[in-house]
Order: sequence, then structure tokens, then C-alpha cells
Amino acid sequence: MEIGFIGLGHMGQAIARNLLKTGHRVTVHNRTRAKSEDVAKDGATIAEKPAGAAANAEVLFTMLADDAAVEGVLYGKEGAAAALARDKLHVSLSTISVALSRSLAERHGEAGQFYVAAPVLGRPDAAAEGKLFVVAAGKKAAVERARPLLEAIGQKLFVLDERPESANLAKLGANFLLAAMLESLGEVFALTRKAGIDPQHYLDILTTSMFPAPAYKNYGGMIVADKFEPAGFAMPMGLKDVGLALDAAKALAVPMPFASLLRERFVEGMAAGLEKSEWAAIARIAARDAGL
Amino acid sequence: MEIGFIGLGHMGQAIARNLLKTGHRVTVHNRTRAKSEDVAKDGATIAEKPAGAAANAEVLFTMLADDAAVEGVLYGKEGAAAALARDKLHVSLSTISVALSRSLAERHGEAGQFYVAAPVLGRPDAAAEGKLFVVAAGKKAAVERARPLLEAIGQKLFVLDERPESANLAKLGANFLLAAMLESLGEVFALTRKAGIDPQHYLDILTTSMFPAPAYKNYGGMIVADKFEPAGFAMPMGLKDVGLALDAAKALAVPMPFASLLRERFVEGMAAGLEKSEWAAIARIAARDAGL
Amino acid sequence: MEIGFIGLGHMGQAIARNLLKTGHRVTVHNRTRAKSEDVAKDGATIAEKPAGAAANAEVLFTMLADDAAVEGVLYGKEGAAAALARDKLHVSLSTISVALSRSLAERHGEAGQFYVAAPVLGRPDAAAEGKLFVVAAGKKAAVERARPLLEAIGQKLFVLDERPESANLAKLGANFLLAAMLESLGEVFALTRKAGIDPQHYLDILTTSMFPAPAYKNYGGMIVADKFEPAGFAMPMGLKDVGLALDAAKALAVPMPFASLLRERFVEGMAAGLEKSEWAAIARIAARDAGL
Amino acid sequence: MEIGFIGLGHMGQAIARNLLKTGHRVTVHNRTRAKSEDVAKDGATIAEKPAGAAANAEVLFTMLADDAAVEGVLYGKEGAAAALARDKLHVSLSTISVALSRSLAERHGEAGQFYVAAPVLGRPDAAAEGKLFVVAAGKKAAVERARPLLEAIGQKLFVLDERPESANLAKLGANFLLAAMLESLGEVFALTRKAGIDPQHYLDILTTSMFPAPAYKNYGGMIVADKFEPAGFAMPMGLKDVGLALDAAKALAVPMPFASLLRERFVEGMAAGLEKSEWAAIARIAARDAGL
Repeated sequence: MEIGFIGLGHMGQAIARNLLKTGHRVTVHNRTRAKSEDVAKDGATIAEKPAGAAANAEVLFTMLADDAAVEGVLYGKEGAAAALARDKLHVSLSTISVALSRSLAERHGEAGQFYVAAPVLGRPDAAAEGKLFVVAAGKKAAVERARPLLEAIGQKLFVLDERPESANLAKLGANFLLAAMLESLGEVFALTRKAGIDPQHYLDILTTSMFPAPAYKNYGGMIVADKFEPAGFAMPMGLKDVGLALDAAKALAVPMPFASLLRERFVEGMAAGLEKSEWAAIARIAARDAGL
Repeated sequence: MEIGFIGLGHMGQAIARNLLKTGHRVTVHNRTRAKSEDVAKDGATIAEKPAGAAANAEVLFTMLADDAAVEGVLYGKEGAAAALARDKLHVSLSTISVALSRSLAERHGEAGQFYVAAPVLGRPDAAAEGKLFVVAAGKKAAVERARPLLEAIGQKLFVLDERPESANLAKLGANFLLAAMLESLGEVFALTRKAGIDPQHYLDILTTSMFPAPAYKNYGGMIVADKFEPAGFAMPMGLKDVGLALDAAKALAVPMPFASLLRERFVEGMAAGLEKSEWAAIARIAARDAGL
Repeated sequence: MEIGFIGLGHMGQAIARNLLKTGHRVTVHNRTRAKSEDVAKDGATIAEKPAGAAANAEVLFTMLADDAAVEGVLYGKEGAAAALARDKLHVSLSTISVALSRSLAERHGEAGQFYVAAPVLGRPDAAAEGKLFVVAAGKKAAVERARPLLEAIGQKLFVLDERPESANLAKLGANFLLAAMLESLGEVFALTRKAGIDPQHYLDILTTSMFPAPAYKNYGGMIVADKFEPAGFAMPMGLKDVGLALDAAKALAVPMPFASLLRERFVEGMAAGLEKSEWAAIARIAARDAGL
Repeated sequence: MEIGFIGLGHMGQAIARNLLKTGHRVTVHNRTRAKSEDVAKDGATIAEKPAGAAANAEVLFTMLADDAAVEGVLYGKEGAAAALARDKLHVSLSTISVALSRSLAERHGEAGQFYVAAPVLGRPDAAAEGKLFVVAAGKKAAVERARPLLEAIGQKLFVLDERPESANLAKLGANFLLAAMLESLGEVFALTRKAGIDPQHYLDILTTSMFPAPAYKNYGGMIVADKFEPAGFAMPMGLKDVGLALDAAKALAVPMPFASLLRERFVEGMAAGLEKSEWAAIARIAARDAGL
């Protein structure tokens, strides 16, 4: 199949490569050309402009950092949306706002194009191994068309309902749960470390008993080691996603006091110079505030 | 071995029965005699007073609701502490304050008695099946003496350090993590339910992907079903434990903003008449505050 | 002087009338024409479009609800910005974002126009009596040109520095302080009312002793009377302004945990159906959460 | 009149001197004798033990740091309660818990003694000038007996209801309002300072317009000057009082999210080594967290 792929960060590169491995022809575009060249070594064709990636695509994937990047790539100069043919499909993998996803659904619909929101759960290493979890939503026909590709890039595909923005909200909710876990771990390790309890031993107890989930083990390990660089998912991304969850919650009139406190924690992290650190580094803020 | 056991709530009964099954002689005491009679059917001897349970014990277990109950049973009228012989061992299974545990260590030490703090992780059904996780701390010799009994009542024993209060703090930390998870789930389900996303489906996604831990599955299931009665661990217990974590944190000068917010959430639950509900019912508060 | 005035809500009408009283010629525009007609009775000329209010103006005032309204009026169809002549002055009285104010400064500068941000402190009744406090910022020459008009509409003019957005931030900060006071009063009256202390008596004590400020007296009076309708400054406006303060704080990497909690409180108020109530009605939420 | 006075900190000394000035005979006791000697220079008699201060007193005043001190002085060894004659009056000026005040009322009642809770609002300099505000509660007959003395030490006496603990709660509520104001000011000055706005100018604007209250001026002045030493009311006292408010709120099932956050802020202040600083130094924490 002819595939267009725009956005070749850590996640995007890994996913594009998996599509290539599955035997599809993939035309890639990335703002910084060097990253396109990396993927070209594995067989991708390079498009100089977003429009070039969309022009011949049956399915156009986008995997971008935020709302502004998605808007720009689709509707900016030489944008992809106008280049995508009628009846073709755009699959948005990015973690974007509920509001933008709803708006994309409308605009693609007006252009006679299909649209699926399919944000992914997992970090770059999981993406490379094809072990992402994919949460998709959109019109049934569109999702069915995307299904084989989404199954190829992840270990499991969950299909929500026919409103694409449901998938985006589900993703934002999952990231909020992770962020809340990070803050909780940060506080509890500040407490127990200051009490003289061995952090690694305590983490082992927690993850052997009540919390045997990879998220607790992996992020807990970072916190115990106090090692947050290089970042797979950096603090500004955490701040962005909690902000998007709060925006969605405000629009629906749902108070989220934990999310709100988390937002301030990430801001505190930015003020402390942790913008290049893994988002789990809010644990370092909890430790700092405890005088550790 | 001659064992004394004081405190026969859901947890205490289950643990005392497991000690009986292992072949020990167990003399039990409980404020409400009827519960002693239940366990007597399985072979326990009944003591009318706390002192009676301690008098001939090699090892005295206590499994009580809070600091006041422990203080009363040990040092009140016909209390167990004075009746326990020199060189014998008190194993405190209760979730009590760090300060009381430290004080018990001192007082038992002055009386030539041994003391181990061994709070347990798990709910009554896990206790019945011998599947608790036990976190113990205390002088090495004391812990070694307690070891076979603690291994008999749980699926795994973790031994921290030689300060008994370390085990209590570890337990309070774990309960704080659970409470934070409950609040996070409450907020995220308020958000997604108000957006029209199917709660059971969303829970399945979460627990199949990032959070495949029993705690997320079990409590998440309660929240999705909005069913919090009868309570295995009721809201006032949650309020108590978060309060004990905050007390310990204050004593150590460790700020815990999430814990602090949780405390208010449980207070809000009490004001809403949920004092007989499972502590997970703070999710009902999140839903109520969202107008659901 | 020829004055243009766009935005005739409670505040705008009162201010426009004061400008008329001072002897200026005022051309007004408002989206809903009826409000223009009200002010026309006092001598104003009506402009059908924003551009009409700006066309002949020496000074153009805008007093609008939010960023979107200001953007629309100035740069939308038949907008005021293009109609305002070179070398003329725009005075923005609205409580808008720091980012928009900075952007207006740039755009007016590029057009050879002058720009002053001059948000006002005070409620509609104060506006009617010319008792507002005005906080202005902008290039010195621009502020000096605006000075006589700003002195005419308020009891006192404060001039900050040469960056217009400083005035907007100062205003947002003042509104945050008011909102924090509202929440504090809400919590303390929930507490003392539930304890059986007479609210009016307690308010008298507070405002006679530590807090003899009109803000405490006026808003405290509403809270004691539990009367929040009709609203002079409604809850969505409070939510908007706290949100703008948080946006500015995020951009500067300043954590504001109180502001963040306040935001959730206003969201909770919206969920509770208080969108037409005075923002002080968050005290009703504090009471509700306490089971009152 | 024969007066006993126990507790000669900054506040106690000032009040005891005012009672002496009014012509009463005052027998003082303080744990550190040197402070008694200071007041003896102004005519007080020194009692070596609490009982000595109470023995001949018509009215016994206590002005102590916390619950433990009050308990100790009254019911400890050679305590004052047993020495106070039947039918005599104890006036507790201290900021103590609602629970202790209620308990004192009971115990004094059982001993045939009178009891009034009369906590004071104001700082040591106000105490010295007789400008405190006094909030009293208790049985009518008891309050009437205390009235002339309470009027002598303050500029205004407020009498609440017949439950002494009402006065304590009212005092805790006022201190909570002050603490909330401190945190709000801390956040808003962190924000505006980081934006480059002159702090002194901004404080002048705030206190000339919306917040012309001494509390805003005085504490705001400390924050602008970043000068919090020597402390008139030190951070541990703020932490204690917010804690007492939260204890009372928990007992009444009243959630107080702001109070809860404040508690963590004071804990953060303690961790930052500010235990000898004025409680307003939580503003320094807000600034630190903003990277200032």
C-alpha cells in the first residue's frame, strides 16, 4: 500500500520502520531532513514538503509533537490535507487535544476524506519492537481500513467508539494516570528516603506486592536511580499532556484536582531547569522540596 | 508454639485461623466476645482480657484498628504488655503510626521483651488464603524468631531494617500509593464517563496496557460498577492511614501535596455520608463534583 | 476629543457614560445594538461596525469579555484596527491575556499606532461612580496621552512600566488574590457554620479586626447571605481570569498551586450549575462539599 | 484583683504588663524564670511553679504555645488547675485546639471553676499597645467576670457564644485566612517579580485599591523586602495553627483544600530551614519554586 508518514521523532521513526518492514511503500516527511534520510536507508522515499507525503497516499499517518505541529503540517503552506485525495484516510497517531481532533474530523469529512485518531501507548523502545498499544476511534469504515496497519505497529489494538476524539481523551487519561503515579512515587520515595529506608528495597517490595506493573517498575527504577536523562518523554511533554487533559476537563466541567496539582509540579520542574529530563523527574522536585 | 492473638476483625480472624491451621496453640482476645467464639470453633482458646492472651504466649500478635486500640490493649487495664513475660515477642500487625511503633519498641525493650512491626499488605480475602504480603522490621533476633510465623500467614515476607517503625512507614507509603491511585481513577473515570466513553471498556484498555496490576483491576472494577458496599476497607480507615502518612511526613519535614489533597477528599467523603463505603468511594465524590 | 468605544457591557456602558459626561464626543459600537441605543440616549453616536467606532477616533477604547472578542473586534471583518488612523491611540480596558496584550502592542506598533493596556479594578457600581482603579502600562508618550481620560473614569490611576502586558498581569494578579480570598472565606464559613457559629457575627469580627477591606466586607456579605444572583462578575469570568493567570504563570515557569486549585473550584462550580452566579458562589461549593 | 498569669512569651509579657498597669496584682509563672524576672521589674510577683500562680488568683490567665504546654501547666506536676480555688476563673488566651478547649471546659466545670476561652488577634507590638482584638466565649457569667480584664488588654472585645471552643475555632479560622493570604501574596509576587514588575509598586497598587487592610500591608511589606527575621510569629506556629484548623475541620467533616495545601507549604518551609523565620516566609518558598 502507498503510505505517507509525517513526523519522524523517536516514535515516528520506529513506527515508520515497522510499516516498511510489513512491505508497504512509505513516503516520509520531517521538518528536519536528516531524520527522513535515516528512514530512507530502510527504504522510505523522502518528500520535501508535507504535501509530498500525502499526494499519492492511500493512508497518511501523522506523528507530531503537539496541536500546532499538526495544524501546520496539515493546513499550513504546502500542507498535507489539500494534497490528500478524496476518499483517502488520515490516521493521527499524535497526542493532541480533544478539540483539535474533533475539528480534524469535521474538516476531513467536508473534504470527503476519512479520519481516524489512533494515539499510542508506549515508549520509543516499545514502538521499535512493535509492542505499542493502539487506541483508535473513528467511523467504522475508516477504522476498518486502518486496522491492518494499526495491528502491524502495535501488540494490541483497542477500538473505542465512532468519535475520533474519544481515542484522544482516552490517551490523555492514561497519561494523566501515569503522571499521577509519578507524583505519588516521588512523594513516597521522598518520605521513605528521608526516613532512611533503602529505596531499591522499598521499590522491590512495592512492585512485588501491590504494584507489579511495568509502569511502576520502570519509572520507579528511574526515581530510585535518580537518573532522568536522556529523556524518552521529556517534562515539557508531560506538562503539555496534563494541560490537554485539563482543557478537556474544563470543557466538560469536570474538576480534576490531582491533574491540576500535577500541572503545577511540572511547571515547578521547568523552573528548576529540568526541561530536558524525563517527566518522571518531578520526583526530583518532591525530593528537593523535602530538603533532600 | 503458644501464641496470643488480640484483635479479630476481618483481617485478624483470617490470620488467627491460619496460625491455628499451622498447628500452633492460639489464645485469642477480642473486645466483642462473639468474634472470639467464631475462632474458638476452629480450635482457639478464648481469653476474657488482653492480659489473658499474653500470659503464656511465646509470641503475642496484635491486629487492631488504630493507635488508641493498640495503646489500650497493651497498656490499659489488664493490658497485655505487663502480662507478656520477659524475653517473649510482640508482633504488631496493625497499621499504626510511626511514632507509636517507635514508642512500643522502647517500652518493650525496657521490659526485656522483643518487638517486631509486621504490617500486612492485602485485603481480607487475601488474608484468608494466606496470600498477604508481610513487611517486617525490628531487631534481627526478633525478626528471625517471628519469621516462620510470618511466612505462614503470607505469601511473601519482606524484611526491612532493624527499626520497627520502618515497616510501619513502608505500609503507610503503600496505602498512600493506593489512595492516590483511587483518586486518579476517580478523576479519569469522571472525565471519560462525562465524555460518553464506556467505563468498562476503558478500564479493560488501561489494565491490559499500562496498568496490569490487581490493584487497578479490583478497585477499577468497583469504580466502574459504582459499588462500594459492603466495605472491606472503609473510608474512615483510608482517612486514618493518609493522616498517619501525613503525620510521619510532617515529623520528617517532607511535603506531600497529593497526600494532603487525598485527606480532604476522604473528609469530603465523610461529609457525603460514605463512612460505611469502601475507601474507593472517593471516586463517587469525583463523579458528584463533576455533576454526574 | 473624538473617542471611539467598543464593548458596552455593564462596565463599558458605565465608563462610556463617564467619558460623555466629561464632554467628549463618543462613537460607540456593541455587538448587540440595543446597548448602543442605551448609551446613545446620553449623547453617544452609534457605529454599526467596529471600524465605524475607530474611523475618526483620537482614542479608541475597548472593553470586551475576552481575548476572542478583542481579536474579533480589532482584526475581524470590518475590524477597528485597520480603521484607526496612524498615530492614534488604542486603550484596552479589557482583562485579557498577557500574550494577546503583547501581540497587540506589536501589531499597533507596526501600524504606527499607539497602544496602552489599562485594565480596571472595581465592579460595575464603582465604574458608574467613576471610582474604578486604573492600572495602565505602555510607552510613556502613549500613557501620557491617555492619562486625562483614564483619570476621568477612575478615582486613581496607577502607571506601571512601558510594557503594556505588565498592566494585564497586574490585573490578573489582583483577581487571583480576590479569588483566593473567596475560596478562603468559603472554607472558613463552611467550617464555622458547621460548628454552629453565627456567620454574620463572625464576619463582623473578621472585618472589624484583621480584614477591614471592602473586598472582605462585600464578598463576605454575599457568602453570609448565600446570595450570589444577579451576578456582577459571574463564575465563568472568574474561571477565565484564573486560567489567564495560570497561562501567564506557565509561560514564566512560576508554579501557583493556589491558583490551580481555584481553577478546579470554579470548574466544580460550573458543574454544579452556578454559571450565572457571582464568582463568590464557590463558597457554596465549599459548603456543599462539607455536607451543609 | 488578684491575678495569676502563666506564660510569658512575647505576647504573654505584653499582656501581663497591661494588667499590671491597670492596677491589678499579678503573680506570674514562666518555665524560663528570666522572663518572670523581666515582668517582676514592673511589679509582678514571681511564682516558682504553676500552682503558685493559681493559688490566690481570682482570675488565672494562661498564654502558652500549644496544647501540650497548656495541659502540662494545668494538670502536670504542681499544676495550676488543682491550685485554683472553686468558683475562680481560668481565662485561656492561647491558640489551642478546639478539642482541648472543650475538655478544659468540662474539667473546670467538674471542679466548680469557671472557664473562658479568649484567644487574641494581633501581634506582639499590638499586645504591647493594648490594641489586640479579643474573641471570647464561655458561660455568660464567666465571660462577664472576665470582661473588664479582657477590655483592658485589647482595643475591642468580641463575645461569641456560650461554648468556649467557639472562640478557639474563630481564632483558628482567622489565622487560616491570614495564612491563605500569605500564600496568595507569595504566589502573586513570584509571578509578577519574574515578569519584571516592581514589587513595591505593585504592593502599593494592591493596598491602595482592593486590599487596604493592615494584614496585606504589613505582611506584603515583609514579602517585598524578603525580610522574615526576627520572627514575631514563626513558621512552626503557622504550621501548628493550620494543623489545628484541619483537625477541627476533620472532626466536623469539612473539607478545606486550601488549608491542606497550606499545611504542605509550611512543611516545605520547615524542610527549607525556615523554622526561625516569620510564617510569611512561605512566600520565599513560592519564589524558590519559581526559580527566583
